[in-house]
Amino acid sequence: MNADSYAEAMYPKMKTWRRELHQFPETGWTEYVTTYRIYEILKELDFTLFTGKDAIHSSSRMGVPTQEELGEAVKRAKEAGADEAFLSKLEGGHTGVVAVLDTGKAGPHTALRFDIDALPIHEAEEAVHFPAEKGFSSSRKGAMHACAHDGHTAIGLATASFLSRHRQELKGKFTLLFQPAEEGSRGAKSMVDKGWLDDVDYFLGGHIGIEDLQIGQIAATADQFLATTKFDVRFHGKASHAGKRPEEGKNALLAAASCVQSLFAISPHSGGATRLNIGTLTAGSGRNIVPDHAIFTGETRGETNELNEYVFSEAKRIIHSSADLWQVEAELIEAGHGTAARCDDIFPELVSRAAKQSSFLTEVLPVIALGASEDVTHMINRVQEKGGKATYMIFGTPLKEGHHHPRFDFNEEVLKTGLLAFLTVLIYMQTNEKEWSE
Amino acid sequence: MNADSYAEAMYPKMKTWRRELHQFPETGWTEYVTTYRIYEILKELDFTLFTGKDAIHSSSRMGVPTQEELGEAVKRAKEAGADEAFLSKLEGGHTGVVAVLDTGKAGPHTALRFDIDALPIHEAEEAVHFPAEKGFSSSRKGAMHACAHDGHTAIGLATASFLSRHRQELKGKFTLLFQPAEEGSRGAKSMVDKGWLDDVDYFLGGHIGIEDLQIGQIAATADQFLATTKFDVRFHGKASHAGKRPEEGKNALLAAASCVQSLFAISPHSGGATRLNIGTLTAGSGRNIVPDHAIFTGETRGETNELNEYVFSEAKRIIHSSADLWQVEAELIEAGHGTAARCDDIFPELVSRAAKQSSFLTEVLPVIALGASEDVTHMINRVQEKGGKATYMIFGTPLKEGHHHPRFDFNEEVLKTGLLAFLTVLIYMQTNEKEWSE
Amino acid sequence: MNADSYAEAMYPKMKTWRRELHQFPETGWTEYVTTYRIYEILKELDFTLFTGKDAIHSSSRMGVPTQEELGEAVKRAKEAGADEAFLSKLEGGHTGVVAVLDTGKAGPHTALRFDIDALPIHEAEEAVHFPAEKGFSSSRKGAMHACAHDGHTAIGLATASFLSRHRQELKGKFTLLFQPAEEGSRGAKSMVDKGWLDDVDYFLGGHIGIEDLQIGQIAATADQFLATTKFDVRFHGKASHAGKRPEEGKNALLAAASCVQSLFAISPHSGGATRLNIGTLTAGSGRNIVPDHAIFTGETRGETNELNEYVFSEAKRIIHSSADLWQVEAELIEAGHGTAARCDDIFPELVSRAAKQSSFLTEVLPVIALGASEDVTHMINRVQEKGGKATYMIFGTPLKEGHHHPRFDFNEEVLKTGLLAFLTVLIYMQTNEKEWSE
Amino acid sequence: MNADSYAEAMYPKMKTWRRELHQFPETGWTEYVTTYRIYEILKELDFTLFTGKDAIHSSSRMGVPTQEELGEAVKRAKEAGADEAFLSKLEGGHTGVVAVLDTGKAGPHTALRFDIDALPIHEAEEAVHFPAEKGFSSSRKGAMHACAHDGHTAIGLATASFLSRHRQELKGKFTLLFQPAEEGSRGAKSMVDKGWLDDVDYFLGGHIGIEDLQIGQIAATADQFLATTKFDVRFHGKASHAGKRPEEGKNALLAAASCVQSLFAISPHSGGATRLNIGTLTAGSGRNIVPDHAIFTGETRGETNELNEYVFSEAKRIIHSSADLWQVEAELIEAGHGTAARCDDIFPELVSRAAKQSSFLTEVLPVIALGASEDVTHMINRVQEKGGKATYMIFGTPLKEGHHHPRFDFNEEVLKTGLLAFLTVLIYMQTNEKEWSE
Repeated sequence: MNADSYAEAMYPKMKTWRRELHQFPETGWTEYVTTYRIYEILKELDFTLFTGKDAIHSSSRMGVPTQEELGEAVKRAKEAGADEAFLSKLEGGHTGVVAVLDTGKAGPHTALRFDIDALPIHEAEEAVHFPAEKGFSSSRKGAMHACAHDGHTAIGLATASFLSRHRQELKGKFTLLFQPAEEGSRGAKSMVDKGWLDDVDYFLGGHIGIEDLQIGQIAATADQFLATTKFDVRFHGKASHAGKRPEEGKNALLAAASCVQSLFAISPHSGGATRLNIGTLTAGSGRNIVPDHAIFTGETRGETNELNEYVFSEAKRIIHSSADLWQVEAELIEAGHGTAARCDDIFPELVSRAAKQSSFLTEVLPVIALGASEDVTHMINRVQEKGGKATYMIFGTPLKEGHHHPRFDFNEEVLKTGLLAFLTVLIYMQTNEKEWSE
Repeated sequence: MNADSYAEAMYPKMKTWRRELHQFPETGWTEYVTTYRIYEILKELDFTLFTGKDAIHSSSRMGVPTQEELGEAVKRAKEAGADEAFLSKLEGGHTGVVAVLDTGKAGPHTALRFDIDALPIHEAEEAVHFPAEKGFSSSRKGAMHACAHDGHTAIGLATASFLSRHRQELKGKFTLLFQPAEEGSRGAKSMVDKGWLDDVDYFLGGHIGIEDLQIGQIAATADQFLATTKFDVRFHGKASHAGKRPEEGKNALLAAASCVQSLFAISPHSGGATRLNIGTLTAGSGRNIVPDHAIFTGETRGETNELNEYVFSEAKRIIHSSADLWQVEAELIEAGHGTAARCDDIFPELVSRAAKQSSFLTEVLPVIALGASEDVTHMINRVQEKGGKATYMIFGTPLKEGHHHPRFDFNEEVLKTGLLAFLTVLIYMQTNEKEWSE
Repeated sequence: MNADSYAEAMYPKMKTWRRELHQFPETGWTEYVTTYRIYEILKELDFTLFTGKDAIHSSSRMGVPTQEELGEAVKRAKEAGADEAFLSKLEGGHTGVVAVLDTGKAGPHTALRFDIDALPIHEAEEAVHFPAEKGFSSSRKGAMHACAHDGHTAIGLATASFLSRHRQELKGKFTLLFQPAEEGSRGAKSMVDKGWLDDVDYFLGGHIGIEDLQIGQIAATADQFLATTKFDVRFHGKASHAGKRPEEGKNALLAAASCVQSLFAISPHSGGATRLNIGTLTAGSGRNIVPDHAIFTGETRGETNELNEYVFSEAKRIIHSSADLWQVEAELIEAGHGTAARCDDIFPELVSRAAKQSSFLTEVLPVIALGASEDVTHMINRVQEKGGKATYMIFGTPLKEGHHHPRFDFNEEVLKTGLLAFLTVLIYMQTNEKEWSE
Repeated sequence: MNADSYAEAMYPKMKTWRRELHQFPETGWTEYVTTYRIYEILKELDFTLFTGKDAIHSSSRMGVPTQEELGEAVKRAKEAGADEAFLSKLEGGHTGVVAVLDTGKAGPHTALRFDIDALPIHEAEEAVHFPAEKGFSSSRKGAMHACAHDGHTAIGLATASFLSRHRQELKGKFTLLFQPAEEGSRGAKSMVDKGWLDDVDYFLGGHIGIEDLQIGQIAATADQFLATTKFDVRFHGKASHAGKRPEEGKNALLAAASCVQSLFAISPHSGGATRLNIGTLTAGSGRNIVPDHAIFTGETRGETNELNEYVFSEAKRIIHSSADLWQVEAELIEAGHGTAARCDDIFPELVSRAAKQSSFLTEVLPVIALGASEDVTHMINRVQEKGGKATYMIFGTPLKEGHHHPRFDFNEEVLKTGLLAFLTVLIYMQTNEKEWSE
């Protein structure tokens, strides 16, 4: 079980997988082609696979797109050659795969999580952008893997392949979660509520490229997970002719504009950092008609659950009062939710020792600040509630542009780093589990 | 030339035309099917027909949709069975028809104008809505004849048919302008600039159903045409991760919201009524991304050209200063323009006398206040500049809902009223022209 | 009863009176010195005088200043030499004088109204400003006769003197109302509710200097009186340390700022002109404290009572919803109210004929648009309700700057014009009353 | 030099001083009576005293009130019995006292700072408020010692008395800074720029009652001093009659309201906490006049100087762009400035050991987070630049309401705690200086 040589050998394949996924990015709950590709690769291995409602708890999903959008996604997936019978299992936006390998030998149950969805961003088309230069840019206008989930998925597949190949030498049980809809904190809970984390001893997650780390550097844990609430607002007003009868309209666009301004004036809190964003807004139907509807989507965040709750409750009041002010009806829907979380204290030491097996992993930082939201927190919290230990590692790579930027890209060498971070911990725990289990 | 019996006889046909047009509404510069249908009907008559760049001055068009939208419209028109060769004449959004009938006998040159475009409104689907009840609702989701241009076109076709049938009995010249893109005040100027109004003696336009008139009542003239400017704004900001790097974003959505609020605070003017509307707004690409773009469309109006200019110049400053305030780039495009206008004083008396020929026309009001914008004003102004006389009549019908409402509808009896208003004036002028010509 | 020669003779005195009043401007309900001076002059004449609660209905006063402000005004008046016994009659802000002359002979009852209050404006100090040049500028910083009420009062005193001098030659009854607190539409109602207008046959009011009239030109009537509501708002929030505990504050200043922006976005109305102004705003107590209070004063106007009611009811909703939005308490007090009104149709002809007696009155316009609020409308309406006839005349003078401007001033020759407008009508009616009385 | 028994003995006097000061609160640069009282007490002791321009560098003062306000303050001080000759030294707002005691023996130079100014807050009048119950509430409406500077001053006077009494037993030099205008971060710099801190070895400052400490608990140092900029803005617009000529006004009140809303939307920063407050706003001169001026005062803060600079530079742009947007002229004046600072690392241990001398000081926390601005940072930074060591201690007391609250009050026992914190450190350093000096 030499991790370094395996990683070196798998590197070309990981790059291929990553680039294929990069070319066909799919946003949360529409990852039909992505799920199909993952499934096709995993079914060659010794895992028991679960998809559709066998993998996720349907009603725990948040922010599921409209039937219309899902229908278009299915159509697109068929055109892209996805198996129709397989697609029917995912019907209604039940994407993602869970892969389980039980060695049959006594040992710890380890869960690993890899997120698979993309973002609604137009990928940069300049030649200087690496995917453009190498010809593997997004083929889908308006969608992009701008948060490295393509890389995460490739690492997950290589991890699965390693476990399958070495199953005879291993003990215990391994559950690999290829999670949909991480963006917007919409998917993790549906896997948690399906029970996959309920008897897990060790949970490992990770992310490519946060902060100023170089290739070979990793962080054993992350802190500063921001609690977050995602929400959708719909204002219903009344249309009228803007020239002839302006006074008869109830202007939903003006109401939304006024509401947005008020939302941005929510006071900061002495208890710590908070955030609010209104990310999209669409309103009105014609230039000369008083706009009768406005739809906007946003999110709040806080360093703690309490701080997020503070901002979100302020936002709720402001949204409803703004509706009253302009005499429009307001609908407010929670479309996603992420909690704060804390990695277990054993990991800085554990990962540091495990990483010594690899000559690629040059430095292990004990902790790095995330300062963002990640719905992996639902999984971390569940594992810990049930008595297990959990961490979330960071895999260093230089970044020219930050996550979610149209020119986001990473040095593909980090695929090896990420894979090795998982493998060295898995291998180390096979022989040293007792030491950490209490 | 008995107008009443002709109107009665043509009524079923006008209803059919109107309902067919109603079922296939097309917004400004995409009236391919509409233009095709008009052409097909007119070509059976004794008119010389002009379409495409022969009918309109290409570069005087305003608010032409994108190539993409025009492409879709052409595709749609082909699917709807429009003649491909004909469509190629309209390529690039050159819609509308001009029909000329020269009797060869000395006499006045009379121009009539009928607007043909629809609105970007979702038609109501309730059974109580007459088109829904009768099964002739819009077949195109998101487009609707909610301003009676379907009726105007039907009246125009019936008028053409009358003139053609009686061409031997008539003298002078007749030019019928089936004008595209009236909504948004985008089309009239392209017909004016083509020169069609340059030697016109009498110009007649009209509209179905403004104000509380009943069937049989008409107004000989309208006043209070609002001058108007239509504009599109595009704000370019900078995206960033709303949780991790909020300070790096330049928030175009917030800039637009703030700008909209400021625009609505433009002071009223002691010189008379003004209006401002922001009718549509679209911004942002994802919930957790600081929005990097915002696009909004709007309009200003004023009782006089000066008042409109006052509001529009205030709006321009506010748009540019708001962009500075939020460090976004602003693009401002004028997408339409309508002037104020004044009908000639001869018409109250003239129409009143002419209408006596019809038993359907029960009352002629001298004038009614329009209080709205209509790009017919470009035509009225050109005719008057060249020494001709112009009016714009109103044809009464009860309205359950106002123009531009998703349940807008009219009593189809008004089709007879409108036709008779045009015909009685045309006939009257054949014998009484001298009296008014000084 | 030669009006012209009387006016010429009185001109120096009118100028003196006007300049004295100009030097000691007092805002509404604090006109102690002004009331005292008027009283002192009138008491030399043959009028029965009423002051304090004998002149006005106490509880019908609107926008009465605080006890503190009234206390300061009394103090100031004492320092200025006003009779203490007299001042005690006015205690609590009961200013103004009513002067009644009953000839004892049968004849019509005519009421005339002259407003006496000043504005809270800092008078311009530039030498180019006529009062500065001539040394009769306001001696009270922050108060100014910038609406010509000093002139109106001088005209009223000269009119009183004329009536007194000619009482033997006259018939009927004359009531002269020296009205306090016209600015803000706060005073007229308190004289109306005292009953002074209940049996009046003819009512005459007027104003110096509206629109572009020259000396000698007058308008017999005015139209476009704007109905108006004056209001005061108080927001109560909660203070907190802006650095340490920003989230604990309820920011009344922010609430007011947001409310003001929303108020300015009230839609114009297709029924006619409307206005809204927030004229003053004071908020907060220290730079580093979240502001716990905000006080603002404003007004709405409309061409009709209905239009004013539309704007004011929108404003009320916006004020209360804005308070909800920012979690502050709102108090809204109506501080003044003016209605729309219509002068009687007899006056254009009547004034035109009457003015022929004077060689100073060179032109009588039938009507001029006021486009402003004037609480004389309460008087006009009451007179008309009771069967009398009422008008409001305009006395022409060139104006370098508009009313309420720090450099507002008028050509003092207009004092003669105004006096003659009243006198010629009064004299004419003595002999021609029968003609107009039906 | 038994500190505990001295503190016990001085307690009644400290309470008396504190209550007298509490009854006559004076805001920054108007502390005439306060300065006089301090001077009168100190002059009985063995200090060399400096006042007026001998104590502070005149042009380094920030946020000095207008001549008018200063004039009223002087008048008030005379009425309160302050010595006229003394007052003339303070002319123009040169308040504060510096007291120097040189023992003549070699030893360290220690500076202590006590701030003396009050806040523009109306003190609560409820009987439940301790100063109201005991009859020592503020006698000056609108001013209040709501930040414990009355207590600080009393502690300073008792410290001075101790030093004077024991001067024979002491070595080195002591400089006591009774600093004006701490609120708004306006005064410290004027003492720093006078050079008082240039050769100081140890600097001690402190504050009563921050955070949830009890009597007897103190913190040896504070961190999280927020850097801050104070600013005043003046918008100059143009008045016009709000009913007749609304379009001619340039509305400064609306500009300020719009600007305030935009200021509150400045993005939070991923680098740490920031704050913005607009604490006061005054605009307009009359209800029916378009407001021609608006004045507002505010502040920005940041956890680091860079963060404060970020917020302040955003604010500057927004203020100037808002002025452009509404066509008003903007003046922006910096009225105060506080930097971030860091207490020296020697103090947690040093204070902890020193406090062992007192049985009142039950617990010494190493550090407490301030989370606020304090212009003592200017002094700390100067001392450290010159090679000295500085700290800022916190003296525990339960607080019913936070600082700057109208019911702010503290348990007067904390006067002993504060005094003892200073004295024990001073005494300890007399014998242990060598140990800490390197």
